[in-house]
This record gives sequence, C-alpha cells and structure tokens, in this order.
Amino acid sequence: MRLAYSTWPEITAFLADSKTVIIPIGSNEQHGPMGLLGTDWMCPEIIATAAEKIAQKNGQDMMLAPTFNIGMAQHHLGFAGTISLRPSTFMAAIEDWVLSLARHGFDHIYFLNGHGGNISTIEAAFSQIYSHYSYNNKTCPLTLKLKNWWDLPGVITLCNQMFPVGHGSHATPSEIAVTYAAYPEQVRHVELTPKIPPTGPILDALDYRARFPDGRIGADSSLATIELGQQIINTAVTGLLTDIQAFSAEQKPA
Amino acid sequence: MRLAYSTWPEITAFLADSKTVIIPIGSNEQHGPMGLLGTDWMCPEIIATAAEKIAQKNGQDMMLAPTFNIGMAQHHLGFAGTISLRPSTFMAAIEDWVLSLARHGFDHIYFLNGHGGNISTIEAAFSQIYSHYSYNNKTCPLTLKLKNWWDLPGVITLCNQMFPVGHGSHATPSEIAVTYAAYPEQVRHVELTPKIPPTGPILDALDYRARFPDGRIGADSSLATIELGQQIINTAVTGLLTDIQAFSAEQKPA
Amino acid sequence: MRLAYSTWPEITAFLADSKTVIIPIGSNEQHGPMGLLGTDWMCPEIIATAAEKIAQKNGQDMMLAPTFNIGMAQHHLGFAGTISLRPSTFMAAIEDWVLSLARHGFDHIYFLNGHGGNISTIEAAFSQIYSHYSYNNKTCPLTLKLKNWWDLPGVITLCNQMFPVGHGSHATPSEIAVTYAAYPEQVRHVELTPKIPPTGPILDALDYRARFPDGRIGADSSLATIELGQQIINTAVTGLLTDIQAFSAEQKPA
Amino acid sequence: MRLAYSTWPEITAFLADSKTVIIPIGSNEQHGPMGLLGTDWMCPEIIATAAEKIAQKNGQDMMLAPTFNIGMAQHHLGFAGTISLRPSTFMAAIEDWVLSLARHGFDHIYFLNGHGGNISTIEAAFSQIYSHYSYNNKTCPLTLKLKNWWDLPGVITLCNQMFPVGHGSHATPSEIAVTYAAYPEQVRHVELTPKIPPTGPILDALDYRARFPDGRIGADSSLATIELGQQIINTAVTGLLTDIQAFSAEQKPA
Amino acid sequence: MRLAYSTWPEITAFLADSKTVIIPIGSNEQHGPMGLLGTDWMCPEIIATAAEKIAQKNGQDMMLAPTFNIGMAQHHLGFAGTISLRPSTFMAAIEDWVLSLARHGFDHIYFLNGHGGNISTIEAAFSQIYSHYSYNNKTCPLTLKLKNWWDLPGVITLCNQMFPVGHGSHATPSEIAVTYAAYPEQVRHVELTPKIPPTGPILDALDYRARFPDGRIGADSSLATIELGQQIINTAVTGLLTDIQAFSAEQKPA
Amino acid sequence: MRLAYSTWPEITAFLADSKTVIIPIGSNEQHGPMGLLGTDWMCPEIIATAAEKIAQKNGQDMMLAPTFNIGMAQHHLGFAGTISLRPSTFMAAIEDWVLSLARHGFDHIYFLNGHGGNISTIEAAFSQIYSHYSYNNKTCPLTLKLKNWWDLPGVITLCNQMFPVGHGSHATPSEIAVTYAAYPEQVRHVELTPKIPPTGPILDALDYRARFPDGRIGADSSLATIELGQQIINTAVTGLLTDIQAFSAEQKPA
Repeated sequence: MRLAYSTWPEITAFLADSKTVIIPIGSNEQHGPMGLLGTDWMCPEIIATAAEKIAQKNGQDMMLAPTFNIGMAQHHLGFAGTISLRPSTFMAAIEDWVLSLARHGFDHIYFLNGHGGNISTIEAAFSQIYSHYSYNNKTCPLTLKLKNWWDLPGVITLCNQMFPVGHGSHATPSEIAVTYAAYPEQVRHVELTPKIPPTGPILDALDYRARFPDGRIGADSSLATIELGQQIINTAVTGLLTDIQAFSAEQKPA
Repeated sequence: MRLAYSTWPEITAFLADSKTVIIPIGSNEQHGPMGLLGTDWMCPEIIATAAEKIAQKNGQDMMLAPTFNIGMAQHHLGFAGTISLRPSTFMAAIEDWVLSLARHGFDHIYFLNGHGGNISTIEAAFSQIYSHYSYNNKTCPLTLKLKNWWDLPGVITLCNQMFPVGHGSHATPSEIAVTYAAYPEQVRHVELTPKIPPTGPILDALDYRARFPDGRIGADSSLATIELGQQIINTAVTGLLTDIQAFSAEQKPA
Repeated sequence: MRLAYSTWPEITAFLADSKTVIIPIGSNEQHGPMGLLGTDWMCPEIIATAAEKIAQKNGQDMMLAPTFNIGMAQHHLGFAGTISLRPSTFMAAIEDWVLSLARHGFDHIYFLNGHGGNISTIEAAFSQIYSHYSYNNKTCPLTLKLKNWWDLPGVITLCNQMFPVGHGSHATPSEIAVTYAAYPEQVRHVELTPKIPPTGPILDALDYRARFPDGRIGADSSLATIELGQQIINTAVTGLLTDIQAFSAEQKPA
Repeated sequence: MRLAYSTWPEITAFLADSKTVIIPIGSNEQHGPMGLLGTDWMCPEIIATAAEKIAQKNGQDMMLAPTFNIGMAQHHLGFAGTISLRPSTFMAAIEDWVLSLARHGFDHIYFLNGHGGNISTIEAAFSQIYSHYSYNNKTCPLTLKLKNWWDLPGVITLCNQMFPVGHGSHATPSEIAVTYAAYPEQVRHVELTPKIPPTGPILDALDYRARFPDGRIGADSSLATIELGQQIINTAVTGLLTDIQAFSAEQKPA
Repeated sequence: MRLAYSTWPEITAFLADSKTVIIPIGSNEQHGPMGLLGTDWMCPEIIATAAEKIAQKNGQDMMLAPTFNIGMAQHHLGFAGTISLRPSTFMAAIEDWVLSLARHGFDHIYFLNGHGGNISTIEAAFSQIYSHYSYNNKTCPLTLKLKNWWDLPGVITLCNQMFPVGHGSHATPSEIAVTYAAYPEQVRHVELTPKIPPTGPILDALDYRARFPDGRIGADSSLATIELGQQIINTAVTGLLTDIQAFSAEQKPA
Repeated sequence: MRLAYSTWPEITAFLADSKTVIIPIGSNEQHGPMGLLGTDWMCPEIIATAAEKIAQKNGQDMMLAPTFNIGMAQHHLGFAGTISLRPSTFMAAIEDWVLSLARHGFDHIYFLNGHGGNISTIEAAFSQIYSHYSYNNKTCPLTLKLKNWWDLPGVITLCNQMFPVGHGSHATPSEIAVTYAAYPEQVRHVELTPKIPPTGPILDALDYRARFPDGRIGADSSLATIELGQQIINTAVTGLLTDIQAFSAEQKPA
C-alpha cells in the first residue's frame, strides 16, 4: 500500500493490522557523467515499490510512505544539480516525518536509505527524537531503523560478484544499473576517463571537486546495464521483504 | 528537462541558456474519503511534468526540479497518513533547496504550489532568504516566485464553470480530478455524506477534525472525473508555459 | 482596558468576564518622504486605543495588549530607520507573546495588523503554535486571528472612495492620514516626484530601493489629510468593535 | 529626534552628524497591586523621551528608537498580564534590532534598560552579536552598551534618600513613582499587606508566586508619589544626557 | 564524591542522601603571557576537588560533576588557544547538563564559576530552563545557583589584601596563583611590559586585542606565587564547604 | 604540548611549525557496575596525554586540546550520573570548538573519540561545518577527522586477543582496563550477574534499561585488569603517534 496513493480511511484501516511504515530516503546529487542526479532516492524507491507490489499480491500488505528525496549532500554541491539539506535541517525534517507518522499510530518506522552521506545525520536524528523521551523519563513507543539498500540480505555480495573491479563508492555501477533497469530510456553512453577514477576522503565541496573531477569515486559507471540492474533489484526486493517482516516483529521490552 | 533524470554535465549545459528552475511543491495530507493523500504534491507535479514535455518538444526547454512533497499541514494531522513539517523546518528546507540551486547559477526559482496551507510559510521563507542580503547590504541575485497551480491563467475560471456548486476549498473536485486524470487506476467511488460538507476556519488538528469530520471543507469531491481533470491539466499547462516565459524574462533593476 | 496600564489583579478580574485580548502589531519601516517610520504600528494602535475607550464607555470592556512594534520589513532595510525582525525571530516572538497570554487564560487572541509584510510570518507563527498541539494529539484552547486594519468592515471601501487614484500599496495616503489625524504635529509637506510612483514586486532590500527610489509604491502620500485620517479612524473603530464582538463569541467545537 | 516619528530622509540627515541611537528597553510584567504592568518599559521611555526634548531644545539632537517593550520575565508569569520572551527569543530579537540599525550606519547603540531581569540576556545577546566578528577575524564597527536607568548618575543615591526603608527590589516605590509622575491618572491607592513584603531568590514562576504572593519583593510601593517620581525623572534625565554625550565620544582603538 | 570517577550504582546510592551537585565551570582562554589558557576552568576545579576531599574525610560527602571547561570567551578569540562557545550554544549545553542531572533526581545544582564572561550567559540559561515550567504552569523541582569562586566567603577580601595594587580583572595574580599552586611545574617567569596594563570595556575580539595587547586587563600577573595561591585555595575551600551546606538546605516554598 | 597548560604566546609559537590539534572527545555515561562514568572521555584523554609526552620527548611536539567530556548519550539517561547533550547541542558545540581553533590557524583537527554513540553526531557536525563553505562556493581550509581510539592501528586486534569472549560493546573490559591502568585506585571488584549480559539494539533510555538492566552490553567488565589496560594504552599510543603524523601530512588538492 502506497501511502500517497491512498485515502485517509484506507490508512486508518491498514493501521488496524500493522504499525510498520517504510520511508525510501535518498539524495539528489551528481552521480558522474552517466548517473542520474536522482539515483540515490530512486534506488530505494524502485526497490520498495517493487517489494510493495509483491507484498500486496501475497496478501501481506506493507505501507510505503512518499519518498524523502533530498538528503545531506553538501560535498556534491560543486556539481550542478545537486540539492542538499544542511544536517540541522535534515534532522528537523526527519523528526517531523517521524512525529507525524507516530501521531497516527505507526511505531515501527523503517528508512530504506540510498545515500551513504545520509547515514550519520539520520542516526543523529533518531537520537534527537529519542532524546525527548530519554530526558523526560517517558516511555517511547517508537522503533526506528535505518537500512541502506545495499545492506539488504544478499545485495552487496551480488554487486561484488558482478563488479569485482571498479565498483567504487560513488556513481557505482550497481546503483546506476538499478536506475537504468527502472528507467531504460535514461541509459547514458559516455566515454569515461579514466575508466576507474581515484578514491579518497570526503570533505567540503571544492575539495571534493578537486579530488574527483567528474564526480565519481573509484567507480566505473560504464559497467552498469539494465540486465544487471534488474538482478540487483530482484535480490534487494527479496531481502527487503524478509527484513521488513523481521523488523515488524521486533518488540520493545515491557 | 527533469533535473533528477539528468546528469550534472547536462545541467551545466542547460545553465548556459537559462537560469530558471521550477519546483513543484505540495503536501501529503488527507483529502477526504475520495482524495489521495498525495493530491497536493501530485497536482503541481502532474502539471509541471506535462508542461516540461511540451516545452521540450517546442525546443524551449525548461528545468523541472524534483518534487518537494511534504509541506505544512499541521491542521490535517488528525487524519491518518498526513505528514507535516513544522513551519520552522519547512522554512529551513526551502532555504536549503534555494541556496543549493543558487549555488549552481539558477537565479529565477519558481515554486509551483499545490497546497494553500503552504503559502504563508513559503512566503516567510522567501523573506528569510532575502534577509541575508538585506541586513548585509548585499546584492541578491535571486528572484523567487510562488504560484499556486489554480492561479495559473484560466484555471480558476474553468474550475468555477465546471463546479458552480460544491467546489469548496479542501478535497475539491478540481484537485481530485487532476489526480484521477493522471492516475486513472486510483479513482475512488465513495458515498459522501453530506454531499457538501461545512466550511469554517482552520486552526489546530483536533479542532479541524471536529469541524470537518471526513476532512473535506465545502467540497463535493464526487464531482471529480478523469475527463474534467484532463481539461484542467490542459489549461494549467498552457498557463504555466506562458507564466514561466514571462517569469524568466523578469530582470532585477541594475 | 489597556493591559500595560493595569495592575495584575485588575487583569485577573477582567479574565473572569472575558478571555479575549487584542494585540496591535505592525512594523517600523520607511514610509516614503512624508510618512512616519512608525506608521504601521501606529495605525493599529491608534484604532485599537480609540475603540478601547468607546468600549469602556459602553461598559463592554476590551483588553488591549501593548503594541508589537517591530515586524518583518527586510525589504525596507535599504532606507534609514527601518528596523526588522527576521521571520524566524518574528515567529518565536509571536509564539512567546501568545503563550504568555494563554498562560493567564486568554484564549481568543486577536492581532490587529498594520503591515502587509507581516501577514505571512504571523500566519506561519500561528501554525507553529498550533503544531505543538497537533503533533501531540492535544486539545488546543486557543483561537488566534489576524486582521489587517484596512480589512475591518467598511475601511477599504472608504479609502477607495477617498483616494480613487494614487492609493497605491506602500506609504498610502490612507495610512499616513491615520497617523496625521492622531499626531497632527507630525504632518509633513514634501514635494513628491513623481506624484504617483511605480508599482512592482517586492524582493530584497537593494532591489526594492532600485525599483522604488523614495520608498513609496504606487502611492501619492500627499493626498493624506488630518480630516480624512479621522474619518478612516472612525470607520475602523466601528468595524473593530463589531469584529471583536463576533470574534469573542466564536467557540471551538466540543 | 524620535525615530518612529521621523521619515527616512530625516534619519539619513541625522546620520550625517551622529551615529548614536538610544533604545528604551524593558518588560511587561506584574508590579504588585499598585504598579502598572508596563512599568519597566515605561520608565526608560519616560526618561529618554524627556531627555530627547531637552537635547532637541539645546540643539544637541539625540536619536530615540521605538521602545522594546517585552523582555525576559519568565519568573513573573504566575501573575496575570505578564508577557515574556524566552531568553533565546529575546537574544534573537535584540540581534535583529542591532543589525537593522547598524545597517543604516548607527554604530553606538545604547540600551536604556528598565528591568533587572533583562540584564543577563541583553549582555549575552551583545556577546552573540560580537561573536560573528570575533570568530571570523572581522573588524566590528559596533559599540553596544547597556545602562539601567537607576544606574544613571545620581539616581540610586536619590532613591535611597527618598526611600531609606522599603525600597526593595521589585515594584519599588521609585519605579512606580516614575510612572505615576508620567501618568498621573494611573495612580492607584491600595492597602498593602504587609507593608514591606519579603525578599528572596528568583527562580521559576510558581516558586516566585509562592514566595512573593502579591508580586512585590521587599518594596513598599505605597511610598510612591507623583512628586517624588518627577524628581527622579529630573535626575535621571540629567544623568542620561551626560552619559550619552560620553558614550557618543567613545572610540574604538584603530 | 567525584561523579566521573564513580559507577552509576554509587551515584544512585548517593542520591538517597543528597540531591546536590556541584559543576565547576569555566573557560579556556588566553590569560596573558604568564597565565595558562585553562586558568578559568582549573580554578573552580582545583577548589571544588580540594573541598570534595575534605567533605569526604568529614563524612559529609558532596557530589562533584565533571568540569565544564569551555565557556563564553568570544572577546579572547584574538589570542591563540582560546576556545569559545557562542552564547546560544553555551545556553543549550548548560540546559542539557541540567536536564540530565535533574533526570536522576538532582534538584540543587550549583555552578562554581571561574570566568566573569560566563555569568550573563549562565544566568540566561537558567531563565531558559525555568521558562519551560513557567510558561506551562508546572512545578519546577530545580534550584539552580551560580557562584563565582572569588565570591566565596572571604576570598575577595583576601585577594585585595594580597594584591592591593595590580590585581586587575583579567589574568589576575590571584587566579594565576591558584593554578600555580595546583600545578607548580607550570609556573612561568615572564617580563611583563607594562607591569600594570590598561583597563577598559570589553567588546569584540579585535577591539580587545587592540586595547589589551598582551591580553591582561589591569593585572600584574607576576605577583602570583605558589604560596599565595595555596592560601587562596584554602580560603575558597572553606567558603565553598559552608556555601554548599547552606545551599543544600534551601527549600522551595510548598 | 597541552593547550590548556600553555600560554597564548606559546600556542602562537607552536603554530609556526604545525597546524594540527588533537581533541580527546568522549561522554560521561554509565559503564555498568564496574566502569567509571567518565570512562569514555578518560580513555582518549589517557591515550592522547601519554602520546603527547612521548612526542615531546622525541622533539616532535603535538598539540593536545582540552578534553570534550560530554557527548551524546541519551540512551544511557536511565542510569544515574549520565550527562548527555542532545545531538543538536552537540553539533553546535563541536562547530564552535572547530571555528575557535580554526580562527588561530589550526587546519588539521583530529577528534580522538571514546564513545561509539558520538560518531554519527560528530560526522554530522563535520558536514554542518563544511556546509558553510560548500553552499557559498568558498575554499575550506579545514581537514577534520574522527578516529575512535579502538580503531587506532593494532588496538582492536589486541583487545580481541585479550578478550576472545565477553568483550561486548558497552562497559567492555578493554575500556575499563584502560581507566584502571590510569587510575589504579579506582579499580572496582563487583560480582556481575550474568557474567556476560545480553546484546541488542540501542533505542531510547527506558528501552535501554529494560534490555540491559545493569547497563552492560555483551561485556564481561570483570576481565579488566591494570596490566591489560597498560598494554592497550601502549599499543594505542604508538598507533596514535603514527596516525597523527600521517594526518598532519595530508594536504588538500590545490
């Protein structure tokens, strides 16, 4: 069940059975000469949407929130098209999403993340949310979880098999393949020089651009294909369905 | 040109010709028993996406940013599925979007809005952004504009003709028709009681729910049809293309 | 009853009968070569103070808070004497005023506004205040209202009759007339060139000054007279007394 | 010269001669059964306005900003009519006032304060303002000063002579006398029990009310008279004129 | 009992007998050519640690929190090694410390301060903390107190006797003597020119450096000796033990 | 060279040779029945202080800032003595430390961390700091680094050898051993039941206490000894000296 494509009485009905909700979360940032700016929010959206369809077919409905499409990408601001939230803004927004959903009774909130640069801030936001309860000695109904799509069962192993050389860490062939599979009309063919760009630390935007002139970090994006992307999606979907089932079953101690 | 579906070199190329960008902005909130929770961000997205296709075909490309899908909807939090940002968070997020896009050279930023409850906060955010320049006696390169899709040339006149009775102001047949036209598989058939619900002031969430028990304000959502929705979209698209052209031509005095 | 000119036991006594309080709110900003910097906070103060005297005489006391004299006027900062709050500060201050008054039992809080540039931020502040209740599923005792003095019954019609040409939108003859009527010793006689200045959009401070060199927007301030000002005050006072009575009677649904 | 009662070209003209501006700042809070809620903002306003008239007559004009009428009075919130800003809001507002005035060229900004509870927060706000320069190694043009009216030359000595017993520290006969002198129609006659109330520490609002049941701290407000108030005003005005002259002459080292 | 050198069950046991906790608080900032950057946090730490040992020996245990070592020192940022918090950050941090300790049951929280520049912000932070209770009509369990170590009984008198000339107000021989007594290996011998530097107002960092070229204000730091420092410590320790006993006995009215 | 135990001219002299500074950072939080509340800030302080001595002896001085002793520990607030900063406060404080040190010319800032719960917020703070440069297209002079002491070369391997069973993740024998080695008088002997407590996820404070009743996570703290602690310190010190040398040599691309 996709929240945005539902009416409120339908959400109320869903809540009678389940309190779990999945939020695809990513970033809109440069992904080199071949990757779409939306790659990092598209990947979790693609995977979660496909999983939701299967769940629905299986009669085990899951709730999919709208996609949180802008994250923390300050280091990519040297490349046109990147849109970033400051960490402080990002934290406030995550808190508001969580408190809104909690208001309706959702108490298991699962962020399926598509951007490594989001991780720290999302975790800090979780702590900020928990703090309200912890300082005030109050019982917190919430179980919050962050999962990167590449950490879903089976995914990283598959990617490493597919791309033993040149997977890298930004504008990777795996993430680009996922978007190509979902949007075949968006496949780019670009001559990459060098095939495999350097790696290095991530600091501010101008430093990033100087280290990584076309935006890629250690990744040969040209290895991405629609077919490989579809295989990754399939594995991720299976992993997500399993992971959500386990997550939904988690209970806080009395 | 859709920003999220582009690569950064493509955005750089676009910027050589135009500094205008359109951001569809809305809200995810209850729209009564027949309207989708995503109605308010879908409407501007639907209209802007359709306009972008025509512009592209006409060789007058326009840049379409990803959709800003969560706005200020505190008054709808009494209905399941509503997700809201506090005004302070919303303002910070708008500022970060604007400053990111300005970083790349966009200086005409046009928010196509789908939610009346967003207007005040977006306007306040504009003033917050301008303040940095105004307090510090600095030249501001930005021209920011907020336009509600129903205020595009011709749209409200058309809606009033279509729905002389029961248009109302929330969960209106016009906005629901637009989403039905774009997502025909999402059409709902629900018996509404009363056909035309009451109107009244908007305060906090519990007050809202007490005044407007099924979420609608003065609107007979059941008047929405796919066909009427398509007509509205057509008119809005034409209006948007005109409005953007005029907006792009606006220049600040030297 | 004027709050600042009362003792706390007198306020306590008042609260036994009424929970309504009026806050004149405005801005301190340039009003062209003829208008006082305080025009926008003086106008609501003048009208509310006059209304309070009549109410008192009629035995229908109304509570008048001190004047909130600095608002959001970033766009006027290019002209000497303008004092502005950033929207974020303005919102926090409005919230603190409201929560202070609510602490004592006032639950109908009416802002009589004198500055168009305040509207968005005041409305956003109301939403911020309501949010505390809406996210937390709590009953909110407050009814907050913003009313511009020129929107009081009868006022704008009168002004349009008085000034069919050259009323404009900033440093208008109507607002200046109101201050001249209240402070006759402050009447200025200045040659205005052009009589009727241009109109246009409002962005940042330097842009504003470039578009509107003497600060006025479309307004021939020289049409203001003490006599016309007194007529406007009279009409506004009557309108305010009526509006407050209706506002005090508003009840939230159980 | 009173800023709010001037036009912007008049302020521009003033700035050719002087960069000093005085801001009367106080609080709106309970002052016991005899004192007006506005006492703390009225006192500096009364003194500064009287000084401004003399200065003008003497041809040594001084610039008087509008009164900052709401300060930090959280501890008085247990008594009806008190309006307080949180320290964080108060600091932001002071910063915005200062930055607005600095924008126009005022570089000597003098806060004439009427409320002891404001002192810490105003001083903290000054440090916050200076911080922008200090962290960034920038030359700061501003000289900020806080002066309590009772610390003006001669004032506290006079008050101690007038009220050797029962002056106390809140709702003092001296501050009430100043308001009675300025607003003779506001004189209250109330039986105070006990004549001299207890003293003690100031913590939160409920604690304050429990310690000081009628709001006064150690003060016999009934000693206030119009005549004594006028004497205090006279002394304070002389002190202020002297102090401002010295302040305006202060220069930062090159 | 030193909190950081205890286990949580030991703190729990302590709380059965006492709810008082002492926080040494200071600053890390330049103290001229002879004083250590840590002087202002070392002094209260040295005194409190010595007092704690005596209390323990006497069977009257007192709880000593870790040292809050960075305060508000924006004006010293022109000298290498100074680390400062902005007032807004400082206030938030004090609030978090207090709310954490309050969470465990501590309700008498005593800040032993070593830096004059901290006073305003700490007091403002106290008001911010109390505000939560005051706006919401809630009983506040907390009694917060700020005490500068030089204001402990007997201390300032002793310092004035020791240093009748050249005590000054920054990098004073008394504070430096305290650190020399505690860290004899840190004694510096430096030729100071002039022996007694100027005094003056404190504004921003560059202004400070221009007025006080070696960082001292009116203080002949070279008068500091280990022996004098030990005497000051002894007096301060006795004063602190007395003061804490009185503070612990303070009760809020019912 | 220890910053707090230096004078400002000594820091200025140091800066002629090196721009690197090390900040020990940790937390003050429960560490089970045997571990000190200060464990997490003591460990990096102990290691860094020992390394600094060696560096000094070797003529390769390194700059050691004061210890940042309170971090993000909201989940431990259910146990007495824990003091935590909210993530938002923690970020602001880290920013102020960094900007203060950067003001003096330090451009390589190395946080030696002792608390896993700090990592996300410190990383988010780095991004917040970088953001100022990245949004504004400015060159950032800073290289910021976070290193957990257990991630120093050789340390975790050693700990795993020492404690093949029962190392766990909170109140670990390794961290407790480090503090026992440094403070032998603080060794606790407590019967732990069970020897090895459960592991699990970390959410809010009450949840934490319910899952981990004595505060430990998977750790048999009783394995800690002074001797093992000293071995860990030795290894960590060597690792730190190596790591700092490499870090100091890192250069940003031109």
